[in-house]
Amino acid sequence: MSSKRSRAAEGAADLPIALTMGDPAGIGPELTARAWQHLHRGDRTFFWAGDARLLQSVIPVQQIASPAEAREVFPHALPVLQVSCPAPVQPGQPDSHNAPAVISSIEQAVQLTRAGKAGAVVTNPIAKHVLASAGFPHPGHTEFLAALCGVEGQEVMMLASPQLKVVLTSIHVSLRQALEDLNAGQVEKVLKTAHAALKRDFAIDHPRLVLAGLNPHAGENGLMGLEERTILQPVVEKLRAQGLDIQGPLPPDTMFTTRWRSRYDAAICLYHDQGLIPLKTLAMEEGVNVTLGLPIIRTSPDHGTAFDIALGPRAALAGEGKADPGSLLAALEMAASMAANRRVAAASEAPEGKESLV
Amino acid sequence: MSSKRSRAAEGAADLPIALTMGDPAGIGPELTARAWQHLHRGDRTFFWAGDARLLQSVIPVQQIASPAEAREVFPHALPVLQVSCPAPVQPGQPDSHNAPAVISSIEQAVQLTRAGKAGAVVTNPIAKHVLASAGFPHPGHTEFLAALCGVEGQEVMMLASPQLKVVLTSIHVSLRQALEDLNAGQVEKVLKTAHAALKRDFAIDHPRLVLAGLNPHAGENGLMGLEERTILQPVVEKLRAQGLDIQGPLPPDTMFTTRWRSRYDAAICLYHDQGLIPLKTLAMEEGVNVTLGLPIIRTSPDHGTAFDIALGPRAALAGEGKADPGSLLAALEMAASMAANRRVAAASEAPEGKESLV
Repeated sequence: MSSKRSRAAEGAADLPIALTMGDPAGIGPELTARAWQHLHRGDRTFFWAGDARLLQSVIPVQQIASPAEAREVFPHALPVLQVSCPAPVQPGQPDSHNAPAVISSIEQAVQLTRAGKAGAVVTNPIAKHVLASAGFPHPGHTEFLAALCGVEGQEVMMLASPQLKVVLTSIHVSLRQALEDLNAGQVEKVLKTAHAALKRDFAIDHPRLVLAGLNPHAGENGLMGLEERTILQPVVEKLRAQGLDIQGPLPPDTMFTTRWRSRYDAAICLYHDQGLIPLKTLAMEEGVNVTLGLPIIRTSPDHGTAFDIALGPRAALAGEGKADPGSLLAALEMAASMAANRRVAAASEAPEGKESLV
Repeated sequence: MSSKRSRAAEGAADLPIALTMGDPAGIGPELTARAWQHLHRGDRTFFWAGDARLLQSVIPVQQIASPAEAREVFPHALPVLQVSCPAPVQPGQPDSHNAPAVISSIEQAVQLTRAGKAGAVVTNPIAKHVLASAGFPHPGHTEFLAALCGVEGQEVMMLASPQLKVVLTSIHVSLRQALEDLNAGQVEKVLKTAHAALKRDFAIDHPRLVLAGLNPHAGENGLMGLEERTILQPVVEKLRAQGLDIQGPLPPDTMFTTRWRSRYDAAICLYHDQGLIPLKTLAMEEGVNVTLGLPIIRTSPDHGTAFDIALGPRAALAGEGKADPGSLLAALEMAASMAANRRVAAASEAPEGKESLV
């Protein structure tokens, strides 16, 4: 593992980010064009694994044969690793005939990143129902990425904004199911994964974690629920004994106040809305979705394909577009920053050839 | 009902607020003294149903025989309707021997308000375990007030801050129990109670309500939970047909953004933390707890007895106190404003002698 990491890390700060196509009928293409406009004079380089024909009459694009060419191209044109859509693309009208191209873009981005040729994967939004109708068996992006990396079940979702990072122990299941699924093993895995990622990818030497309670007032000594005592507290004690800095389980309603947020680096939450309500309530713009627990770095904007407002790159760049590139830009920046941090972490660990959680 | 309301409303804007003692060993007495200091030069009058001995060496106090005397006293001394504590009061050391006095203070405040002699009840915090050890059978303040008013089960909790009003369909039960208890009748009752209170007590002619979904993305068309379809949507449709302005069930994570909050007057939430996470995350200071569904107006600060920081009025007013009177002041102001609004509403309704929800 450490040898792979140090190999991938060689010059990783200089490696371009692989940005996937996403659904070509969604807002991905227009946001990609805008992101290049924003970034091409800066020092963050990305290439697009997408169909150059979607953008070529709108911004300068240049097909590349390998990510190694991206840096030289980027200042004057969007570097594109061509992934051709077999069917015509109508903004707002997804077509499952293009699903294989959408999937191939993701596969190529992951492959190039695992091979150390790209620094990270940033994904444009896909529409699960479009891919599902073409036989795509995964519940979503995140699970597909874990499968491509051979680490099914290890993926952990973090949502990050400038105000708050939340890490979820359950994601897209009903609240009832999230309660059924809650177990110490999962909570332990998520706490450890968050701790390791904050150290390696966010350059936080001593990550401070908090764990949310499940019940009002974190159960108030068992008066309003026992999960804090039976499931959560033992995990906290176990990992504290291993040296992790964890507080909790905390009363969920007060742990996201300004005062509390200053005391931790990430909050581990037990169901989707426990983490996403405070994140989205606080965020002035949308956050960044980060998949932890993969061997590669992956971020994505925290919005969907938005077929209802997708106008296509030409109209969007003519000033008619309603889609905001802020979250994609934040996702690209966070991926680049994480890749640089991981490179430093790998370089400092490589000599000993060891990898430690704590 | 309407005759009672118009009787209670006569001159209600001029009626003083009844502030209960709360636990005398908590922060209630020191906050009461501070609140009088803040307010005695203004036009909001309250009297304290408490033990004058706790405050008399700290601020000017004057015992009154009836709320009618409060207005004349208030500018130069805190008017006190004496409720004597049988046991000595040590700040931070609650004593169940004083429980009968704590309970009596609440009973008197409710009685005077129901009789039209006080405009509203504002309660200082009590400690349930102290009262329980003295035989108090109610789970909390709110349920006790409903029982005193003869409307058990009709009480509904609202939490209000300048940024957000949330109304809860379940309160102090485990999350698992809140899911078990969720039912259309309760949701309908809470929506109707919130609508009526916003009109009558908050002077909002056409209240705009939103109902939270239970599941991530409000179930996403049944993919992540069915409660939206089976329980919530039918209630929304039924009450819309009756003329109520209700949107939802909404995805819980996006409904508290600035943009969404501008579109509604109150959000109805299905479990404690769904409402209290966004409220407390947004509030710069603590909110106000408002009990809807009672024949009287009742507010309270949204904090507890805080025995751990209670210093007693003398030390607190000497500048050593850590307890912040902000929430109590907000509770007093909101109660006074609600009483004034209710008086106007009752006056405009009285001639027809009718009471309509919509």
